Amino acid sequence: MPRVSTDQLAARRRQILDGARTCFADHGYEGATVRRLEQYTRLSRGAIFHYFRDKEALFLALAEQDATRMADVVAEQGLVQVMRDLLDTDSDRSWLGTRLEVSRRLRTEPEFRARWQEHSVALTAATRARLERQAGAGALRDDVPVPVLAQYLELVLEGLVSHLAMGLPTDDLDAVLDVVENGVRAVTRAP
Amino acid sequence: MPRVSTDQLAARRRQILDGARTCFADHGYEGATVRRLEQYTRLSRGAIFHYFRDKEALFLALAEQDATRMADVVAEQGLVQVMRDLLDTDSDRSWLGTRLEVSRRLRTEPEFRARWQEHSVALTAATRARLERQAGAGALRDDVPVPVLAQYLELVLEGLVSHLAMGLPTDDLDAVLDVVENGVRAVTRAP
Repeated sequence: MPRVSTDQLAARRRQILDGARTCFADHGYEGATVRRLEQYTRLSRGAIFHYFRDKEALFLALAEQDATRMADVVAEQGLVQVMRDLLDTDSDRSWLGTRLEVSRRLRTEPEFRARWQEHSVALTAATRARLERQAGAGALRDDVPVPVLAQYLELVLEGLVSHLAMGLPTDDLDAVLDVVENGVRAVTRAP
Repeated sequence: MPRVSTDQLAARRRQILDGARTCFADHGYEGATVRRLEQYTRLSRGAIFHYFRDKEALFLALAEQDATRMADVVAEQGLVQVMRDLLDTDSDRSWLGTRLEVSRRLRTEPEFRARWQEHSVALTAATRARLERQAGAGALRDDVPVPVLAQYLELVLEGLVSHLAMGLPTDDLDAVLDVVENGVRAVTRAP
């Protein structure tokens, strides 16, 4: 058996994840058959399931990748920026599909909730950490506890994801996000 | 054929709607079979479908009833109160099931969107009308146009519905709604 370097393993894993992401986005979780996953990843089922136990494991790996990416954006630019990216049709919104699938499964599969829990804490932690940093710098309103502000932002994000998923118009939403962003800042509104 | 008064017709229609509502809540739209609808309404399928063309028509009638009820609460007490009622487990949350079903179908059935459009305008109209009245009374912030504030509130409502649907914890949500309510009012926050 030929020796394969760690780099090659990582590259192969990435190839599978990238293909699977597009496949899930195009066909949904149910519609992403093994045959389609083979087409999208340009790999055999043997190769795919060498890296991931089953489709569920592949999906969770994608969702985890997305949660990490989102947490990175949150840490750098805040959750409101994540929402602005969602409105920007030029930006990479490929994680929206994964997020919607997660929302759907959280609704319909109680046993999925427990498995998802560990993935969702990353985003909450990143959101809180960034808010704490802003609070330390005096940039945050100080009349509401940080965990409440974090949950506020996550609730708006969930509404936005749902809104986009339902294909509703997004015309006013940039202005709505200004209201949201304003609402957590240490600014006194003009009376 | 015996003459039936308008009151009796209305009462029968209400009986069907009430039974169907519980049936949809317990079993979901797909699971609400004709047999189950008969059990829940204590009426024969013949009687049920004399009043409603099919299950779809019955569901839309329920959704319309809910939209009207919600619009009434909004007109009287505002959209934030609708959200507070959602958090109050003692209150009547039976419309949550309908709302979730609507959200699900808006996501998965593009042709349902057009049919739903006419039902959803009632809520938006009621929300805007109430905000306009508050603005007239000087109770509303005046640096953001009313349609933006209305969409802001609807976005938070959608997030809340989604949050509840996913069975996530609701501990901090009352405080979150205070932030939301505060965010549309003409009050200057303490610096």
